[in-house]
Amino acid sequence: MRETIKIGIVGYGNLGKGVRQAIKQNPDLELVAVFTRRDVASIKIDDEQVKVLHVNQAKEHVDAIDVMILCGGSATDLPEQGPFFAAMFNTVDSFDTHARIPEYFTAVNQVAEEHGKTSAISIGWDPGLFSLNRMLAQAILPAGREYTFWGPGVSQGHSDAIRRIPGVKGAVQYTIPVSEVIQSIREGENPELSTREKHLRDCYVVVEDGVDKEQIAESIKTMPNYFADYDTKVTFITEQELKEKHSQLPHGGFVIRSGKTGANQGNTHIMEFSLKLDSNPEFTASVLVAYARAVSRLNKEGQFGAKTVFDIPFGYLSAKSPAELRRELL
Amino acid sequence: MRETIKIGIVGYGNLGKGVRQAIKQNPDLELVAVFTRRDVASIKIDDEQVKVLHVNQAKEHVDAIDVMILCGGSATDLPEQGPFFAAMFNTVDSFDTHARIPEYFTAVNQVAEEHGKTSAISIGWDPGLFSLNRMLAQAILPAGREYTFWGPGVSQGHSDAIRRIPGVKGAVQYTIPVSEVIQSIREGENPELSTREKHLRDCYVVVEDGVDKEQIAESIKTMPNYFADYDTKVTFITEQELKEKHSQLPHGGFVIRSGKTGANQGNTHIMEFSLKLDSNPEFTASVLVAYARAVSRLNKEGQFGAKTVFDIPFGYLSAKSPAELRRELL
Repeated sequence: MRETIKIGIVGYGNLGKGVRQAIKQNPDLELVAVFTRRDVASIKIDDEQVKVLHVNQAKEHVDAIDVMILCGGSATDLPEQGPFFAAMFNTVDSFDTHARIPEYFTAVNQVAEEHGKTSAISIGWDPGLFSLNRMLAQAILPAGREYTFWGPGVSQGHSDAIRRIPGVKGAVQYTIPVSEVIQSIREGENPELSTREKHLRDCYVVVEDGVDKEQIAESIKTMPNYFADYDTKVTFITEQELKEKHSQLPHGGFVIRSGKTGANQGNTHIMEFSLKLDSNPEFTASVLVAYARAVSRLNKEGQFGAKTVFDIPFGYLSAKSPAELRRELL
Repeated sequence: MRETIKIGIVGYGNLGKGVRQAIKQNPDLELVAVFTRRDVASIKIDDEQVKVLHVNQAKEHVDAIDVMILCGGSATDLPEQGPFFAAMFNTVDSFDTHARIPEYFTAVNQVAEEHGKTSAISIGWDPGLFSLNRMLAQAILPAGREYTFWGPGVSQGHSDAIRRIPGVKGAVQYTIPVSEVIQSIREGENPELSTREKHLRDCYVVVEDGVDKEQIAESIKTMPNYFADYDTKVTFITEQELKEKHSQLPHGGFVIRSGKTGANQGNTHIMEFSLKLDSNPEFTASVLVAYARAVSRLNKEGQFGAKTVFDIPFGYLSAKSPAELRRELL
């Protein structure tokens, strides 16, 4: 039997839990330990093979772990944890603050190169699989335009923004892509689209007794950056309904490019990649786990430093050999 | 200005013509020469920069061409031309006989490695982009099943099979994916599908005067391998209609994977990649051209031998630098 790739998880929230489940689906991968900043006694994992350890103990386990999957958030965790762990481990993370990716890449790359480690950064579906499809479509159809639509799905940032309004007890916001617009792109049109034309915002809100609902709806709909530029729908529901009907984290989206070819640019081609996900964190976790396999291989080949989805051949994501891939999947 | 990548084309049918048009959309690429087995005087190209030469002259141009794009057919041209040109040039081809890819890979790989050349084989959309998406979806969602549907589009092989029936003057066959089945997969079902349930075959046929149309329709519908296992529709039309309405070569298709994740495999995720192409040869040509860029870079890095879509990082397909890709597309 081939040796398994030993995995560690840093951070055990929704994403970390998803990574643990995803590892179970891949017989060539093995979860060795979960590292947390919380009290280790607060995390229960019903598997004696998996240690629960404090992040400060990570350095004692450098020889036991081939790839560390960093499951912290992009706002404050990863900017610190990315470079920190890249000095000791091969890593995979889902850093998703698009505007700050270049500086994050530079920071992680420098440390990883210096220590002979390999780090896949900004892995997931956007950034990640959607980025790949944007790039592929541009490279193949340079005369064209591509569109990214997100949803239908829960936006945590927008849900949080509603929850900060005084009088609001709970809220979930769904981002809904406008299907008529997507249909027109699929039919070969290349519309110029305003923010409002691409997505709707659908909000389910629980308020405290006696508050003015109309005023809260108005506060949501006029909130700058988050809602003011969109058509926003607000529905007030009970705490019970919120819990029963809106506690999942579905998401998804579409990357569509429409491009022209031929002597008179007379032929239109539509390339489309789409995701429809029951659980955003579980799917993202599945992507991270496939890239952990790739990172382990790249490191063995001496390819050190930070890598993005653009740098890694797809074959490295699969447990199958190149010859198997050619025979079975090409 | 950066030096352009010099391209040669071998074979000037629909695909070769598409490659010429695609190169014009990419300022970093330059078409230097078209090589043909036919009389060179029979090919007119209204561009003085592009030489038309006999294939036997190719060896005199090894220093003038960075990548040769082989536009011959998979049945007889490429098995011979692939290894032949890989000894002199970096190459890209669209070898698409799935069952024979492993032996073709071995033949081209050996020659290319021996001569320090790089050859991207079996490039296009299937094999090619569809293969990538099948592999990606399997690697990310190992607990699941994926489906490939082709069409709506013209199948040359099936059109040819109809034309070989005595009394038939012309024919075009469209492969039509069954949309109800695709919809059920999108909704998370994982049906077991027979050949008949996945695609319909829609045939437009021109016959000679006085022949028995019913008998011809019957010959088509019962033809083994090509039609007997499908629901087949036959419509008789005039030569004029065939020319006016059925002379394009549209194609496309879908790769869909439905997979489960989570503690109880309770969450379903749908990954879908689809193409809708006005011109199959022009789109395939656009893919070949993007991979020509990748082949040129791989060869400069000393990565010799045969490569498939599984081996080549997406970033190599783009004219943009890795830093530009991270900033603009990640």
